[in-house]
Amino acid sequence: MSIKLNCDMGESFGLYKIGLDEEIMPYINMANLACGFHAGDSVTMNKSVQLAKKNNVEIGAHPGYQDLVGFGRRSIACTQEEIISMLVYQVGALEAFCKMYDTKVTYVKPHGALYQDMMKDDAVFMAIVKAISSYNTNLKLMILSSPRNHEYAKMAKEYNIELLFEVFADRNYNDNGSLVSRALDNAIIKDEADVISRIKSLKEKGTLLSISGKELSLQTDVLCVHGDTNNALEFIQILRKEISA
Amino acid sequence: MSIKLNCDMGESFGLYKIGLDEEIMPYINMANLACGFHAGDSVTMNKSVQLAKKNNVEIGAHPGYQDLVGFGRRSIACTQEEIISMLVYQVGALEAFCKMYDTKVTYVKPHGALYQDMMKDDAVFMAIVKAISSYNTNLKLMILSSPRNHEYAKMAKEYNIELLFEVFADRNYNDNGSLVSRALDNAIIKDEADVISRIKSLKEKGTLLSISGKELSLQTDVLCVHGDTNNALEFIQILRKEISA
Amino acid sequence: MSIKLNCDMGESFGLYKIGLDEEIMPYINMANLACGFHAGDSVTMNKSVQLAKKNNVEIGAHPGYQDLVGFGRRSIACTQEEIISMLVYQVGALEAFCKMYDTKVTYVKPHGALYQDMMKDDAVFMAIVKAISSYNTNLKLMILSSPRNHEYAKMAKEYNIELLFEVFADRNYNDNGSLVSRALDNAIIKDEADVISRIKSLKEKGTLLSISGKELSLQTDVLCVHGDTNNALEFIQILRKEISA
Amino acid sequence: MSIKLNCDMGESFGLYKIGLDEEIMPYINMANLACGFHAGDSVTMNKSVQLAKKNNVEIGAHPGYQDLVGFGRRSIACTQEEIISMLVYQVGALEAFCKMYDTKVTYVKPHGALYQDMMKDDAVFMAIVKAISSYNTNLKLMILSSPRNHEYAKMAKEYNIELLFEVFADRNYNDNGSLVSRALDNAIIKDEADVISRIKSLKEKGTLLSISGKELSLQTDVLCVHGDTNNALEFIQILRKEISA
Repeated sequence: MSIKLNCDMGESFGLYKIGLDEEIMPYINMANLACGFHAGDSVTMNKSVQLAKKNNVEIGAHPGYQDLVGFGRRSIACTQEEIISMLVYQVGALEAFCKMYDTKVTYVKPHGALYQDMMKDDAVFMAIVKAISSYNTNLKLMILSSPRNHEYAKMAKEYNIELLFEVFADRNYNDNGSLVSRALDNAIIKDEADVISRIKSLKEKGTLLSISGKELSLQTDVLCVHGDTNNALEFIQILRKEISA
Repeated sequence: MSIKLNCDMGESFGLYKIGLDEEIMPYINMANLACGFHAGDSVTMNKSVQLAKKNNVEIGAHPGYQDLVGFGRRSIACTQEEIISMLVYQVGALEAFCKMYDTKVTYVKPHGALYQDMMKDDAVFMAIVKAISSYNTNLKLMILSSPRNHEYAKMAKEYNIELLFEVFADRNYNDNGSLVSRALDNAIIKDEADVISRIKSLKEKGTLLSISGKELSLQTDVLCVHGDTNNALEFIQILRKEISA
Repeated sequence: MSIKLNCDMGESFGLYKIGLDEEIMPYINMANLACGFHAGDSVTMNKSVQLAKKNNVEIGAHPGYQDLVGFGRRSIACTQEEIISMLVYQVGALEAFCKMYDTKVTYVKPHGALYQDMMKDDAVFMAIVKAISSYNTNLKLMILSSPRNHEYAKMAKEYNIELLFEVFADRNYNDNGSLVSRALDNAIIKDEADVISRIKSLKEKGTLLSISGKELSLQTDVLCVHGDTNNALEFIQILRKEISA
Repeated sequence: MSIKLNCDMGESFGLYKIGLDEEIMPYINMANLACGFHAGDSVTMNKSVQLAKKNNVEIGAHPGYQDLVGFGRRSIACTQEEIISMLVYQVGALEAFCKMYDTKVTYVKPHGALYQDMMKDDAVFMAIVKAISSYNTNLKLMILSSPRNHEYAKMAKEYNIELLFEVFADRNYNDNGSLVSRALDNAIIKDEADVISRIKSLKEKGTLLSISGKELSLQTDVLCVHGDTNNALEFIQILRKEISA
């Protein structure tokens, strides 16, 4: 079983730097590049696409709500039409940089609050599916792996969109397969050994233990890693080794 | 000799409406669509592309400086890298909406201060040419027709970019072929009969009189018309008739 | 019984114009001036303060969510700290223009989605009260008059903030005293005679009929009028006459 | 002779962090706080004012061009009216946070390109003076100390504004007293011993050597220090000791 690593990248903005993009890029498979709405500016996108291409990393569009000061982490009550248009705009802008360097966007992963709204509200999920479908049915949509994977896949298939299911190895899960809210203290699993053992479980059994100890069966196409934590680089290197083992 | 009419379109933003896009679209040949930096938001772009397509109007990207409050009319001192990236970003975003509706961007016309900076500073012109060339050499670049047309064409050709030369029939020209600054009272020619006679002169002789009465020979691929003046619609209808005559 | 008219003003942004501020200002008592987040730019604020002062109209700060493209009509999930800071920022910016012209802000009326969130969620209401109180306890807070007026007044009083209760004469009310959502067809009362008779009822009996015919008792310190509808000016003139009668 | 240290502070924006504000604040006398246009958001401003007050540091408004992606370092061609309004807006917004904590803004130092434009173009200088004067004549304006100090002081005095002259001890100066452009390699003096000896010269003789070795006589009310360089904190501690000596 092959699991890929994806990481949010290209989130710097002007003089503001976030993340260790250059250092981390060699260890991941898929780079979710911010598209200028919640993070990332056009110069950053230009550089990020070049960096991803140089490292043979797949490029995904990482569109978010238009809320730089909130880093796309605050839900904005949008209409379906607004979601579709803002998705197409952002994906197209990123694709333009890919075109500059003879590469392409291969998937879409909504960012932050948009990602969460997508998992909470099927109307948001469908708006995103429709946006991608109307733009390019070859793009895959990355969503949170959950007990509802089958339902999501069915909805997406109606619009000829294929899904990628991602698991957060360093996040705790509720019994219903949703992520424990970042507002709670136990949202993040900080013990590295714990995270490694969770990844082993995912690789070998395809399961993960919820916060209450319930065994969750989760399809794992991709694992999400974070590039902005203290020891991000070291930890991603360890994950890389573990997954490639 | 065939002259086309181009008009800035899609400049509304959220609740803010500018221009009579629906009314004017049937009378023009080329719509310069704002791309979200100086005007236009993603929902507006989505609608504008549909409107242009419905009217068989060519779609041009109309990128500008990132300055909504200044409507892209204030020059911002940018590096070449910044100009290239902001051009590619905006053109790509617009192209995405075209892709949604099986149509395409065929040309680029920089907006406002960026257009003026392009005509004043060859480094800006070259940054724009490089941006377009690295993205898609099939896109043409629309610039102000002037005695320097030949030089510009030569510079653009090095990057495989073809130019479209535009004339402003309702603007006064300095003797050197530049536009009289909007800061001056006589920038705009308000007498319609005057404008019509200038267009006749352009069609028949390819010339225009400068503010001091000097005969300027100006290649005229396209005429620019304005959609936000008082009697914009009536006037564009008259121009349309005159040019088609 | 004296009822004042308040109207959203100063909502233009750069080249984008909204509202008939100059025409309407003479007929209202209180101008809610946008503060640059959902609408209004610094030049517009400068002019609007001058216009209000010239017409002896009270100046209120009209802060909103930082969402120009959504005109502040989309709720953004903010923390209390974010609400407090964005309120203080906007009120202070407006007050600066008042200081330029030896006048002052006398009240705060949150805009759009922030106003609605304030009426839906006591935590938002309290954040707004705290923001105003920490800045200047002489500022009043304008909220929607409802059966809960007494509770709101009590909460505000703890922070030494006085409330102004406003009624929308041209909006239908639910039985619980909330406004019928703009998403519904019957949100707005378009018949002018109806609106006038509702105002008479407010003046004489202090009551209004809900959408189902229930008599709602509503304290009416101020009536909200709209400056951006088709016959806004004529209608406000009629209201002015009716209220002054 | 007493020289004060000023430093740009409060330049973080949302999740984006810049500078070591907490560490550096105890060692400076005056904090130039960003006001939300080129950097700084309302939450950051709220915290920065508290931090400055806690450390008994004077609070200055640090307004800039409305260009977050360019960090206010790109000149934007503004009218006098635009400069005045954007200054008043930003200063007022910062003052509001000061009011929250019973403190106040005591001076204004324009940021980045606005600062440079002020020193290059007397019309910009005068717009800034007028803005401050119309708002509060007790605020001082901090400008670059140069051979033209006397002229600037005279122009400002007409509007009852007092100036503070600042020197950059770690920047090279041209013979005419202007700063060597950051675009050039020798703009910044990196050798600490050099900087210290320049400060000694300023304290003892009131002079500085230009890049060509010319002795420049420069009134030095304040020295500017930078909080975003590698060893910023250590260096500011050294300067602090040197100046207090």
